[in-house]
Amino acid sequence: MSDKLHAPSGFPENLPAEQIAEDRIKDVMRKVYSRYGYTPLETPAVEYIDTLSGAGEIKKEVYGINRAAGEGTENQESDRGLRFDLTVPFARYVGEHFNDLRFPFKRSAIGKVWRGERPQKGRFREFYQADIDVIGQDTLPLHYDAEVVSVVREVLEGIDIGAFTIHINHRKFLQGLLQGFGAEGDKLTDALRVIDKIDKVGFKQTQTDLQVQLGLSEEAAHSLLTLIDKKIPISDIESYLSGIETTNPLLEEGKAELRTIAALVKDSATEKGKIVLNPKIARGLDYYTGSVYETTLDGLEKYGSICSGGRYADLASRFINKSLPGVGISIGLSRLFSIIKQEKLMPFNKQTVTDVMIGLFGEEQRAVANGVARVLREANFNTEVHPDGNKKIGKQLEDASKRGIGHMVMIESEGGYTVKNLEKRQQETFDSIDKVIHFMNH
Amino acid sequence: MSDKLHAPSGFPENLPAEQIAEDRIKDVMRKVYSRYGYTPLETPAVEYIDTLSGAGEIKKEVYGINRAAGEGTENQESDRGLRFDLTVPFARYVGEHFNDLRFPFKRSAIGKVWRGERPQKGRFREFYQADIDVIGQDTLPLHYDAEVVSVVREVLEGIDIGAFTIHINHRKFLQGLLQGFGAEGDKLTDALRVIDKIDKVGFKQTQTDLQVQLGLSEEAAHSLLTLIDKKIPISDIESYLSGIETTNPLLEEGKAELRTIAALVKDSATEKGKIVLNPKIARGLDYYTGSVYETTLDGLEKYGSICSGGRYADLASRFINKSLPGVGISIGLSRLFSIIKQEKLMPFNKQTVTDVMIGLFGEEQRAVANGVARVLREANFNTEVHPDGNKKIGKQLEDASKRGIGHMVMIESEGGYTVKNLEKRQQETFDSIDKVIHFMNH
Repeated sequence: MSDKLHAPSGFPENLPAEQIAEDRIKDVMRKVYSRYGYTPLETPAVEYIDTLSGAGEIKKEVYGINRAAGEGTENQESDRGLRFDLTVPFARYVGEHFNDLRFPFKRSAIGKVWRGERPQKGRFREFYQADIDVIGQDTLPLHYDAEVVSVVREVLEGIDIGAFTIHINHRKFLQGLLQGFGAEGDKLTDALRVIDKIDKVGFKQTQTDLQVQLGLSEEAAHSLLTLIDKKIPISDIESYLSGIETTNPLLEEGKAELRTIAALVKDSATEKGKIVLNPKIARGLDYYTGSVYETTLDGLEKYGSICSGGRYADLASRFINKSLPGVGISIGLSRLFSIIKQEKLMPFNKQTVTDVMIGLFGEEQRAVANGVARVLREANFNTEVHPDGNKKIGKQLEDASKRGIGHMVMIESEGGYTVKNLEKRQQETFDSIDKVIHFMNH
Repeated sequence: MSDKLHAPSGFPENLPAEQIAEDRIKDVMRKVYSRYGYTPLETPAVEYIDTLSGAGEIKKEVYGINRAAGEGTENQESDRGLRFDLTVPFARYVGEHFNDLRFPFKRSAIGKVWRGERPQKGRFREFYQADIDVIGQDTLPLHYDAEVVSVVREVLEGIDIGAFTIHINHRKFLQGLLQGFGAEGDKLTDALRVIDKIDKVGFKQTQTDLQVQLGLSEEAAHSLLTLIDKKIPISDIESYLSGIETTNPLLEEGKAELRTIAALVKDSATEKGKIVLNPKIARGLDYYTGSVYETTLDGLEKYGSICSGGRYADLASRFINKSLPGVGISIGLSRLFSIIKQEKLMPFNKQTVTDVMIGLFGEEQRAVANGVARVLREANFNTEVHPDGNKKIGKQLEDASKRGIGHMVMIESEGGYTVKNLEKRQQETFDSIDKVIHFMNH
């Protein structure tokens, strides 16, 4: 077989058991997003390059599309390309359909995006993102900043892959703090970049870098870093913030907004899903203007943030002359799933969606078995009749078991139904299919 | 705004109310496919051109992808392109992962495909297909041919857009019939092409064409056409087949297989979902080798088949040296949805997934309202708290109503909850949230 008859490198696909697990994650996301009223919305995979290239530096990663590939049309210039994220198409969508939308507009999107990067572990050329955003017209209340955090907490708890921590910060708070240490203009940007690397280079080196960049004394740099290099549990945020006295208006504003968000999000934190204030998080410097979020899996911090976002001043200024502030958060689904596979955070034992296999004591039972299958399907069991009634029943059981199917049902010739739990290896015979259903449901 | 800041032509996207309707259709498909044990499976959007170009004549429709669009790389040749259907990638998948799969292998796929065609009404450059296939190793029992028909009947009934008809035929049956009228080799192919056009050119013209192509007398052409230009209800298939006496082995085989399929599919037909034998259906001449299917919406036959498929001798011979017969059927989801929109076969009145809006008599109720929202979400209601508690409650009701939200719940300051059904304009006050839930569920 030609090498080219494989899936291209960087374009991942799942085996059935993996796909079932990934679909379960998507189902949790879709459900929780909808529970909070984030309406699912799809945009095309393809946009004009002009739409995609607004964010200049990402342009080189964009895949352009050309008609009639490989047929002497290589010189045709692409004016369209594959989307590299879900936010730019969403901004274009809101601009294009503004008059048909009602604000605040809450939308979710679970979709694939494409980047022409060199593929590496956990990084793909085609991958899923799972976003929610809420967009206001002119203003957007702060309670949505708290809401997106609650949504993510509920999604990750629903996926059930262990404990995690959602890190919150506020750009105005961090910038206000830095201003207090003399960081303004370019110096501010430099300081944010230095702080962003603290997990990589360590406290000591960061302190030195801050001394150089901001012209601080060793003591000042140390006290700045000590103030921000910590994770404050949600219940301690109030006392942490009270400890910071200031007259800097930016810092005041940041503190006030953090207080409001913390108060609203407080009840949302759980044992498994912790929420902390992490004052050193900056994120996309050009984009975010208020609250910012990152999320790490406890004990697996080395993988970085699996879910990030924040508040932005304007979604769609490139596309429409309206003020549309928003807040959003994006789960890197494919990245998260690659961590789940690598760290074996889920079992991958179901090779089929089928819950129940109906075994046959002979092909002549097929029509009757089809009728039983219909009843089981109506009772919400994914049901198959065994492909081959001429196989021995023991072989049929083995087939079902190997595929990870939970139950096998057999129609007894003398009446009644035998049902076997293939995991627990228990079996019972009942005189009605309703009792079989009850057995399988309990 | 630049023209290029719109979605590109032929790449459709939905407004929220349309998206909710399309998602409901996808949910029905996903559910029914799973009920029958067809495991959802995804392959990448992108394949090597070598993989895609096996079906030679479709090559010119393929969109190739190029990295770094519009940056002096136009001369780069694409070796990868966007898939134009779900079958070719599935064949490549089965070839690549053969050793990890268990046969018969049942899979479903609801995914987008891309074709570089000129867009026209109901035809898109990016569109959804929704396929199921079951693949056997060396052999595949005939009962799967009946099953895929049952699945499609249940899906279309679940979508609930009116009556429809599934047309069944068998290639061996039709070819055997034509052989009886002297059609062999090239003549057979010509005759199939002539018959395929009968709905367009009419009975009379087809009769003339058959006389010319097969060198038949007027009488013979007439009797052949009379035999096949009819739709035989599932309950009459047996008597129709018995009326055709033959010693032609191909025809005998076709009759026998049609009988078996008809017997298994008989119970599946309903008032709304009719199943008929339509002996003039041929479909993909190079591909299908046994049963074939088409589906039309009653009264909307002008749109052609919205769901087609059949039995094929070998899925993946280009990719693996194994005999893998299969049977499959594909619903043209985007095409179907464009008919639904055009013919208004569904209401498009829900602009949000939200079921319940909690109204606020003031912002100070927000924290309490968040707690109520949590309870409602746990009871499976998609719930929002109104964005702005400073708005008058009448305005809040109006907001909810305009979005197509079903219920509004208000927390009374003196205790208790008022719930209003926004469609029926009924309201009641209860002393517990459980009673509100009961009210909304009934």
